[in-house]
Amino acid sequence: MSREVVLSARPQGTPQESDFELRDVPDASPAEGEVSVRNVFVSVDPYMRGRMTGVRSYVEPFAIGDAIDGGAVGRVVESSYDGLAPGDWVASMLGWREQGVAAGAQLRKLDESVAPPSTALGVLGMPGLTAWVGLVDIGGVQEGETIYVSGAAGAVGSTAAQIAKLKGLRVIGSAGSDEKVEWLRSLGVEAFNYRETRAKDALADGIDVYFDNVGGEQLEASLGALRPFGRVIACGAISRYNDERPQPGPRNLGFVVTKRLRLQGFIVRDHSDRFGDFAREVGPWVRDGEIVYRETIVDGIENVPAAFAGLFRGDNVGKMLVRVAD
Amino acid sequence: MSREVVLSARPQGTPQESDFELRDVPDASPAEGEVSVRNVFVSVDPYMRGRMTGVRSYVEPFAIGDAIDGGAVGRVVESSYDGLAPGDWVASMLGWREQGVAAGAQLRKLDESVAPPSTALGVLGMPGLTAWVGLVDIGGVQEGETIYVSGAAGAVGSTAAQIAKLKGLRVIGSAGSDEKVEWLRSLGVEAFNYRETRAKDALADGIDVYFDNVGGEQLEASLGALRPFGRVIACGAISRYNDERPQPGPRNLGFVVTKRLRLQGFIVRDHSDRFGDFAREVGPWVRDGEIVYRETIVDGIENVPAAFAGLFRGDNVGKMLVRVAD
Repeated sequence: MSREVVLSARPQGTPQESDFELRDVPDASPAEGEVSVRNVFVSVDPYMRGRMTGVRSYVEPFAIGDAIDGGAVGRVVESSYDGLAPGDWVASMLGWREQGVAAGAQLRKLDESVAPPSTALGVLGMPGLTAWVGLVDIGGVQEGETIYVSGAAGAVGSTAAQIAKLKGLRVIGSAGSDEKVEWLRSLGVEAFNYRETRAKDALADGIDVYFDNVGGEQLEASLGALRPFGRVIACGAISRYNDERPQPGPRNLGFVVTKRLRLQGFIVRDHSDRFGDFAREVGPWVRDGEIVYRETIVDGIENVPAAFAGLFRGDNVGKMLVRVAD
Repeated sequence: MSREVVLSARPQGTPQESDFELRDVPDASPAEGEVSVRNVFVSVDPYMRGRMTGVRSYVEPFAIGDAIDGGAVGRVVESSYDGLAPGDWVASMLGWREQGVAAGAQLRKLDESVAPPSTALGVLGMPGLTAWVGLVDIGGVQEGETIYVSGAAGAVGSTAAQIAKLKGLRVIGSAGSDEKVEWLRSLGVEAFNYRETRAKDALADGIDVYFDNVGGEQLEASLGALRPFGRVIACGAISRYNDERPQPGPRNLGFVVTKRLRLQGFIVRDHSDRFGDFAREVGPWVRDGEIVYRETIVDGIENVPAAFAGLFRGDNVGKMLVRVAD
């Protein structure tokens, strides 16, 4: 037997622990081509909130009673797939489970000697690819430009901010605590605490690109601060995900015309063909310490819902993970 | 002596005739390289509203007491410029004046045998180039796609709708009167009266591209109707130009991320290098009647302010012009 977390109610507003429950499930054996995996780290990501609403978006919503799929890393227990053996580290979409079975071909084998396996859920995984694709393919950032990254201490934001620095941009970043601001400053980011400083003031010099992870007021301030021909990399809007009703958009969207702005949204899974290029550029930076990462690790599968809810309070510095096994 | 229209007060909300006054000015003679022109048609365009607010945008604001610069066509009276002779038709930026002097090199000589000179202010001028650049360079429209054009009976919109038809798109258009809707239907546009039909309902089948001339509710409805990877050609927002206070933006801007939308603003004067390509493609369509155009002509320079104000009530079908001489 092992445990998994299932959706028991659609969250109203901020997700509550009572929206989820633990369920015991019998262990399954892998069929031909499959592998059973014991998860070690499971990922909680802001985008999962959208799948809990029951509204069809770019991914199917979770049904009530579904276990929550998502990123996870773990070790192979039993394999009927040629490329994987017991003990191998793999990244999967097995989600909020202690143990599960997946097609071997859908797993990514991780080399522990290159980077800690948990980085496959963060700086060298989906959040890292999101940051890199956003900057390179969506934003087309150029050396010498100024970029503003909101949610800059998060998994995506902290990677985006550091990649932008390495590409020769001036980087301004916001976060919601002094601790996060201090960390960002240590990385060379001109950081401010958005709970204390208005983005409008922090961006008064103007920006060329806005990497939007939060939406709302930060987006409005950025539209005001963007220079002509500026771009918005529309990655996410964590400030909006728990809204019970749609909130009005920025009052200054007219700047899109007058300043010839481009707002472009993207979803990382459309860009999975870029993973190799991403890993070739960013992997060495992580290995050599030119990009650093932080992880906020919560222990125990029973604490996955609380860790998930904590994302929306900004409890995490860097990537939020739940360790479900040693 | 001749007359010109000057800005006497910054409009509050909808422009009023009292915001302008007529002024007599002595005739000037052209210096070397210059030409004096008697205007025949002067153009009133929605973008001019922005220059009246006193806020610096992509063009300098008009000062109180300034004559209003803008598009005009007229005939050369006296020339000290080699390429132009008295009687020649020229397009200029001489604006709301009966007569003026301009550098010959800044005038575009018009061939009356190709098209009526007034078209240089409409279908074959700035509004036509706006429509074409928006579709081709900003929207990247493709045969088989569905496009929604708001303000579709206006100078830009009616040209955009017809170019899109000729490029093999399905075209939905909105306008504010039954007369306009009838005209658009005669052009093969699936037209609706936005005062009677909600855009949300008219666009229920989905769209790939939205050519936005009006902003506001039409933009919100379009964000809802756009299919994944849809584009917004952000050309203008006439519904917003007279707002005294910034109004909230669309409540569904989150679709930019989930549907991977691209919103891109543009200003036609950044694209003047495309005029030749535009004229080569669209000129023959106009000549051969594959693109038709309408003009709403008001007589007398004293009526320029009323004609301008009428743009915001939708008084015009097609291009609004004021005839200031025979």
